[in-house]
Amino acid sequence: MKPINVGLIGIGTVGGGTYTVLSRNAEEITRRAGRPIRISAVADRNLELARQITGGACKLTDDAFAVVNDPEIDIIVELIGGYTVAKDVVLQAIANGKHVVTANKALLAVHGTEIFTAASQRGVMVAFEAAVAGGIPIIKALREGLTANRIQWIAGIINGTTNFILSEMRDKGLSFDEVLKEAQRLGYAEADPTFDIEGIDAAHKATILSAIAFGIPVQFDKAYVEGITKLQAADLKYAEQLGYRIKLLGIARRRDKGVELRVHPTLVPAKRLIANVEGAMNAVLVQADAVGSTLYYGKGAGAEPTASAVIADLVDVTRLATADPEHRVPHLAFQPDALADLPILPIGEVETGCYLRMRVEDKPGVLADITRILADQQISIDAMLQREPEEGEGATDIIILTHVCIEKQADAAIARIEALPALQGKVTRLRLETLG
Amino acid sequence: MKPINVGLIGIGTVGGGTYTVLSRNAEEITRRAGRPIRISAVADRNLELARQITGGACKLTDDAFAVVNDPEIDIIVELIGGYTVAKDVVLQAIANGKHVVTANKALLAVHGTEIFTAASQRGVMVAFEAAVAGGIPIIKALREGLTANRIQWIAGIINGTTNFILSEMRDKGLSFDEVLKEAQRLGYAEADPTFDIEGIDAAHKATILSAIAFGIPVQFDKAYVEGITKLQAADLKYAEQLGYRIKLLGIARRRDKGVELRVHPTLVPAKRLIANVEGAMNAVLVQADAVGSTLYYGKGAGAEPTASAVIADLVDVTRLATADPEHRVPHLAFQPDALADLPILPIGEVETGCYLRMRVEDKPGVLADITRILADQQISIDAMLQREPEEGEGATDIIILTHVCIEKQADAAIARIEALPALQGKVTRLRLETLG
Repeated sequence: MKPINVGLIGIGTVGGGTYTVLSRNAEEITRRAGRPIRISAVADRNLELARQITGGACKLTDDAFAVVNDPEIDIIVELIGGYTVAKDVVLQAIANGKHVVTANKALLAVHGTEIFTAASQRGVMVAFEAAVAGGIPIIKALREGLTANRIQWIAGIINGTTNFILSEMRDKGLSFDEVLKEAQRLGYAEADPTFDIEGIDAAHKATILSAIAFGIPVQFDKAYVEGITKLQAADLKYAEQLGYRIKLLGIARRRDKGVELRVHPTLVPAKRLIANVEGAMNAVLVQADAVGSTLYYGKGAGAEPTASAVIADLVDVTRLATADPEHRVPHLAFQPDALADLPILPIGEVETGCYLRMRVEDKPGVLADITRILADQQISIDAMLQREPEEGEGATDIIILTHVCIEKQADAAIARIEALPALQGKVTRLRLETLG
Repeated sequence: MKPINVGLIGIGTVGGGTYTVLSRNAEEITRRAGRPIRISAVADRNLELARQITGGACKLTDDAFAVVNDPEIDIIVELIGGYTVAKDVVLQAIANGKHVVTANKALLAVHGTEIFTAASQRGVMVAFEAAVAGGIPIIKALREGLTANRIQWIAGIINGTTNFILSEMRDKGLSFDEVLKEAQRLGYAEADPTFDIEGIDAAHKATILSAIAFGIPVQFDKAYVEGITKLQAADLKYAEQLGYRIKLLGIARRRDKGVELRVHPTLVPAKRLIANVEGAMNAVLVQADAVGSTLYYGKGAGAEPTASAVIADLVDVTRLATADPEHRVPHLAFQPDALADLPILPIGEVETGCYLRMRVEDKPGVLADITRILADQQISIDAMLQREPEEGEGATDIIILTHVCIEKQADAAIARIEALPALQGKVTRLRLETLG
């Protein structure tokens, strides 16, 4: 059969991986897709790099729009990232009646509604498996594999950089700053790691997951985002002693009145499979009413793992390229006219367990004051750890794990605890999920 | 939009779950599928049960063929199991131009080629996500999520009964027979557990996975099948001491000259995520060239988890029911005219590590004899464990782990070891996979 023609915009890490894997596995991919998938044009600012990777086997240009406007191209693969040129490229491709495959989570989390609406109106597909958890087919699992279910919550390790850092901090007892430097040296963290370590990348992905899980629009601006920069080695150690690991989780949970959408360091029981996902690996745990818990694990980044997702999308789009739009899977899992209007809940309304660490003077009555405050706020205690003060120290650490409570009640309790004369400094608060 | 009409053949555990979940989540499922999916006829020998579950809301009959031949029905869901009536039902449905959804792994592993050929000729779909690993969307992940990849191997815990039994044997140090009785009492094992404990059920599923991973026909008759009935508590204990767990794995591995397709108890390093899948849970680990390792975890059986997969298939089939066949995913992942002719290798050609347990007289030179035999067969030793003989025992257990070797070489070595005068009884041999 006639090949389908792909225009690749951006031939960096993922683009290069996509070109390599499509070439290497061309025979098997064609046997699956039913027709050859051919990259027939590449746009990149670095023409020399593009020439090296492709060996000049296709049209090369430094002008993305030359490819987007090329009438021979059926599918545009957008791999330049960011919100600016990438957005213009995607919208122009859609306007030109081309299907789009993208790995751009930032673009979709922020401008997804505009993009999906344009695509639906023009009758083209925008596929984005590579935008969340790299090579793990989690978009497909949620959007197609679990269609029978009312999804209750999703909790994912969806940023490899931060999981690598947390694994190293725990393993080696090092501080965040020390491990970050090591991660940068090894290439697990970028020179400017802000998007990763502040939780923004994970929040982009969690936003996309929340939309396809619950049939709501993408609403990155409503997500609660907290990174791992303030985590101390002591917290990882205390968590361990209490039977927990600390992971940066992206969480989307359905509640009666709305949806919780949040990224933050989270204590997870050490016995859970997801607590044992180490290094730069990703995993997404999904709780749904019919199937129960399912977990999806694999590499969340890297040239070929991400290319795996890009090419899976290319095969899907190739199969359905000439089918009527009603035969296709809706972009956000639910039909565009059937989205729900469940709001994203503000963080104050969120329900989680709490890990509270505080430094107090070692004198009678302090613990009674603290537990009284928690009781006043209807917060019940699940476990407590008090470190023996060292000789002459005069102060000690108290760690309290609470059962699930409403965030604003915990806020109120923390404010009152911090006002106690015996308190030294602030209360460190982390959230806890049993994921049971 | 007009509902699609489903005929349900068999309303036992999975059929009842399918009816329940389709009713309970009708609104969300319709929002995803784009049109209502309605069970409009049910056939079951137990009409009273069918009436109880459906409340008489659809046509009921005890004649499966009355539903299969009903011109109003678009999709037949076959949930009666087995090879006889089920086969006739599926083939008649196909002949009548109806799409089929089935959870019947035995039928597909044995008669899949005939069924898929008939379906392709008639232009209908046969969907079977529920046939492997219950609610885990592993068929979709392999067939659509990993299309970019050359799949190297698959190793799965794909039978919950045996995983439950092995978990209990390890946890409680009990014998196989004791735990089997407990499992039957709890409903984790059937009154006649042969299909599960002898590995046949897992082999049906592994056969299906091998076909969609490598583009080969289903060939259950070529699978090597070994169950867990001969496992002794001592082997689980020794494996543990050496840093391994024993799991019943279904394995499909691509080799240059063919495909390994086998089910047997397997030592797996305890640190692997899949080694920590406990109780009746399932998990499938896939190694592929672009994405690397991915793992899929969830419930492999039960009414609603299996119904989750049946309904996901119903949504897929509904979306593509009126599309031209070229827009659909091929039954066995590769286009029917593009299957490979890689043979299934005989077990003698398979490569694995070995766990060898033997009881020997406690006298000098025995170990030298054994290691000499292994060296003669080019089998190298990875680890060894020798239990100190108890006072007056006069004999001791030696456990040897080997590096990867060819099965028939291990067979030859075992035969020679068993001929040593110092050997008491037979050598117990288990296979070992590092899954690295």
